[in-house]
Amino acid sequence: MSVILSQNNYGKSGVRVLKVTKNSSVHEIKEMNVNVQLEGDFDKVHTEGDNRKVLPTDTMKNTVYVLAKEHPVKSIEEFGIYLAKYFIENNKQVSGVKIYIEEKLWDRISVTGENNSAAVPHPHSFISRGDEKRICSIIHNKNIVSVSSGILGLLVLKTTESGFEHYIKDKYTTLKETNDRVFSTSVKAVWSYANQEVNYARVTETVRQIILDTFAKHHSLSVQQTLYETGKSVLDICTDISEISASMPNKHYLLFNLGQFGIENKNEIFIPTDEPFGLIEAKLKRDK
Amino acid sequence: MSVILSQNNYGKSGVRVLKVTKNSSVHEIKEMNVNVQLEGDFDKVHTEGDNRKVLPTDTMKNTVYVLAKEHPVKSIEEFGIYLAKYFIENNKQVSGVKIYIEEKLWDRISVTGENNSAAVPHPHSFISRGDEKRICSIIHNKNIVSVSSGILGLLVLKTTESGFEHYIKDKYTTLKETNDRVFSTSVKAVWSYANQEVNYARVTETVRQIILDTFAKHHSLSVQQTLYETGKSVLDICTDISEISASMPNKHYLLFNLGQFGIENKNEIFIPTDEPFGLIEAKLKRDK
Amino acid sequence: MSVILSQNNYGKSGVRVLKVTKNSSVHEIKEMNVNVQLEGDFDKVHTEGDNRKVLPTDTMKNTVYVLAKEHPVKSIEEFGIYLAKYFIENNKQVSGVKIYIEEKLWDRISVTGENNSAAVPHPHSFISRGDEKRICSIIHNKNIVSVSSGILGLLVLKTTESGFEHYIKDKYTTLKETNDRVFSTSVKAVWSYANQEVNYARVTETVRQIILDTFAKHHSLSVQQTLYETGKSVLDICTDISEISASMPNKHYLLFNLGQFGIENKNEIFIPTDEPFGLIEAKLKRDK
Amino acid sequence: MSVILSQNNYGKSGVRVLKVTKNSSVHEIKEMNVNVQLEGDFDKVHTEGDNRKVLPTDTMKNTVYVLAKEHPVKSIEEFGIYLAKYFIENNKQVSGVKIYIEEKLWDRISVTGENNSAAVPHPHSFISRGDEKRICSIIHNKNIVSVSSGILGLLVLKTTESGFEHYIKDKYTTLKETNDRVFSTSVKAVWSYANQEVNYARVTETVRQIILDTFAKHHSLSVQQTLYETGKSVLDICTDISEISASMPNKHYLLFNLGQFGIENKNEIFIPTDEPFGLIEAKLKRDK
Repeated sequence: MSVILSQNNYGKSGVRVLKVTKNSSVHEIKEMNVNVQLEGDFDKVHTEGDNRKVLPTDTMKNTVYVLAKEHPVKSIEEFGIYLAKYFIENNKQVSGVKIYIEEKLWDRISVTGENNSAAVPHPHSFISRGDEKRICSIIHNKNIVSVSSGILGLLVLKTTESGFEHYIKDKYTTLKETNDRVFSTSVKAVWSYANQEVNYARVTETVRQIILDTFAKHHSLSVQQTLYETGKSVLDICTDISEISASMPNKHYLLFNLGQFGIENKNEIFIPTDEPFGLIEAKLKRDK
Repeated sequence: MSVILSQNNYGKSGVRVLKVTKNSSVHEIKEMNVNVQLEGDFDKVHTEGDNRKVLPTDTMKNTVYVLAKEHPVKSIEEFGIYLAKYFIENNKQVSGVKIYIEEKLWDRISVTGENNSAAVPHPHSFISRGDEKRICSIIHNKNIVSVSSGILGLLVLKTTESGFEHYIKDKYTTLKETNDRVFSTSVKAVWSYANQEVNYARVTETVRQIILDTFAKHHSLSVQQTLYETGKSVLDICTDISEISASMPNKHYLLFNLGQFGIENKNEIFIPTDEPFGLIEAKLKRDK
Repeated sequence: MSVILSQNNYGKSGVRVLKVTKNSSVHEIKEMNVNVQLEGDFDKVHTEGDNRKVLPTDTMKNTVYVLAKEHPVKSIEEFGIYLAKYFIENNKQVSGVKIYIEEKLWDRISVTGENNSAAVPHPHSFISRGDEKRICSIIHNKNIVSVSSGILGLLVLKTTESGFEHYIKDKYTTLKETNDRVFSTSVKAVWSYANQEVNYARVTETVRQIILDTFAKHHSLSVQQTLYETGKSVLDICTDISEISASMPNKHYLLFNLGQFGIENKNEIFIPTDEPFGLIEAKLKRDK
Repeated sequence: MSVILSQNNYGKSGVRVLKVTKNSSVHEIKEMNVNVQLEGDFDKVHTEGDNRKVLPTDTMKNTVYVLAKEHPVKSIEEFGIYLAKYFIENNKQVSGVKIYIEEKLWDRISVTGENNSAAVPHPHSFISRGDEKRICSIIHNKNIVSVSSGILGLLVLKTTESGFEHYIKDKYTTLKETNDRVFSTSVKAVWSYANQEVNYARVTETVRQIILDTFAKHHSLSVQQTLYETGKSVLDICTDISEISASMPNKHYLLFNLGQFGIENKNEIFIPTDEPFGLIEAKLKRDK
């Protein structure tokens, strides 16, 4: 019998970097978790233990820090492209580079002004925005670079204007129809671009606001409908975006059964649950 | 040989509740994780398997939901006191009740106004504030009720005006002195009260702002000094508070050694780390 | 502009089930976390909020429990196939079903025998095997069913017979070559089958033992080489398997620098780290 | 107003160490997560930012690694005592040291023997035992050293011989009595010693087996009764132990309601849940 090594890749994950940019006394920060993966001429590493073409993952890690120093890191996308180019141009055994970056978000602390005047953003102190993250993937194969961006962990909840009715009833159905339920989801959205020259940060802020506006204002007949409406609005408004995928786990808030104690629950008391959860996913693209 | 059951308690943990309060079309929400623990005349449960005095933890859970319906739940402290009283008054075998509540924080979503006018807070849609939590503990022993409140997971970072110098050097010292480092911590603060009639929500907002103001504005010579300064300011400003404990893990951001590649690191490139971490704790009280 | 819904799927995740099988006084248990995803004629759910073809995810959940009662659940693969068939046969709007199951592993507790005789496995008491899991994916598209199986979280460590040498040195290299290092990884392996009639549980046990044997006995020149050797041995021995993918994160144990204190570290004192970590992945298949 | 610093302590947490001991070709490993906390004359650090008496937490970390090299680390207790002594003897400003250690457990990999003979334990390759951990706390105040040991995360489940009946029924009771339920818990047990010369590892193995034997063999009328029986057996058998505390979260496996579909659930199909959970705690000591 003989065996074929049909695919392989390797790299470094979890390279955490904080870049501080100091313009006068106002500091900007960018905190990233960088992942690098390489493909290429690495068969003999596997089959013979021949490491002569291996760029060690430890060196990838060092390189990320040095390049973060060299590059302004205005956006994770631009930094990711810069990293990918470096690895492919400096390693001729490499045919493909994948960079995946997660950005941890920090907001400026709003401090009390002098003499208790209005709050002001502080020049060098920051507070975490929590689990919400920015992400990007850069795939650099030979001469082609593809970029996608995204938002992870945007956790939202609405207390009305969401329902779920008229679905299939079969022998295992116990769910009650409702035209008024709590709807909570942790949105993940990932999109790719129609153009190469993009203001990534601005696009991302626009997508984020569309997600929030749609979630809040749209009267939802199902998670699917809200997801579709969100994607459609993004494609309507952001001409830089060619395709968007979204995932909306339905984080169920179950109505507690007060009725068993003779009390009416007017959509006031809910049990937040983590599992099981509905998982709704779709991809939308522009019709050319 | 004989054995003494020197202490015992039991209860329900992880009772998650969302309470929605609907005043006209503007909704308020309170999401809590409630823990109930009872002490009392329960020796025979252990020694003989005699359950006749046991209030099942499942019943505690149901009770939490019913009482959340009955009570306005303006603050977790008031709701916790209400819960504790219920359990002690309705179970004569119980000598002590401990209620611990963690509140998950939600902010209103800021939505785009009509015709792209200024953003406005939405009446029934919310976004998670992340890992920051409010907590309270209520201990109700016979007729005495003691209340403490707190903040968990307030994650902050400053990029300058923090140093650490003049410490002991011994044979295992390798740390370099610095008058300019990144300082990041996830603040936990817990306080107890000098008075019984307290606007808990307002006190907590004041403490939170003092923590943020002190962290941002105080030039730190050590985590200890920042922690002390924070506690002192709280006791200065909040006359309702008699004692405050705080914990500040030092979430180290290590300067990456660019020097090994002939590049100077002017406090620009750091390695965020989770462990090991310094842990600094102190308790301050008012001198009577 | 017009928008195309290019892909969509939905289902229930995190459906946790314990099935207890009682043969005489000896009990068997199977604990699973089941995920169901459907594709099909669901466009109008998204575009019009028309739910008439939607099987609610809550009904999927109920169905999982009922079918777990009906089916013997000897292996997660057989149960997954049974589930997939049920959904596709009972929902004509559905064109594809994906079932993903994670099995939590329990071993029998070994109890002290009568009169302190040798330990014996207990008939109805179990102890968790920790983070190691069995997984399977069933994809049922129209008439074609494909099955893959896997192992997750098999965490191992060896203290010698692992090295890493002769790799590329460039201007950002700082890693030292070594022919003797600690090697630790949390193996993930996923394989698909050459045949339809398979004793899934037996194959999985064989793969697991090959992973352990190879990890322990193979003198590793790189993670890649160990991974390849493992995959090759699996394909050599398990004729039921047609293809195997494996992922081996390199969970670095860094040599602590005792030299700075004039002490030699003869590979005795290491710093276990979680991040960054190397990530090595490959896929092997049988050459036809 | 004036403020009193009523308590303070500081130290390093999360110092992870792997110690490899090589006797001939058979290697032993000990993986620990070490926490050091100091109390003493540190008021001016807080009030004046005067660091002259501060042993940096970074130095504590280095010291842990050096001392792990010096000491055989046969047990975490002996190593913890050694560490505590070092810090108190070398820092006259320190009045109290607390060392807390968690040990991650590794078993030898059982490899296939030559010519497929019986499995044998491998001399230098290990597999993780999962979430179960050993712990110890050493408190060294001036001349007094107190030691406690424990087990964390011992996750067990039994499918019968557990019931819960005859408890209080009140207006919020919905739980059904049962004489046959699934009982699962993640045991935490912590004990202190009657003597100073103790074989810590042997005592811990004995306690662990008593926990498992009692859980498996005892017919449980309540979690409380099982917990008490466990503690009583430990005090009966382990004369080195003077006091034991245990915590048994009741990890509920809920009977799925098959009855709503006309199917009987003969204790076969359960829903494993993480929250809410019962939490049962008690402390037992020897009656002198």
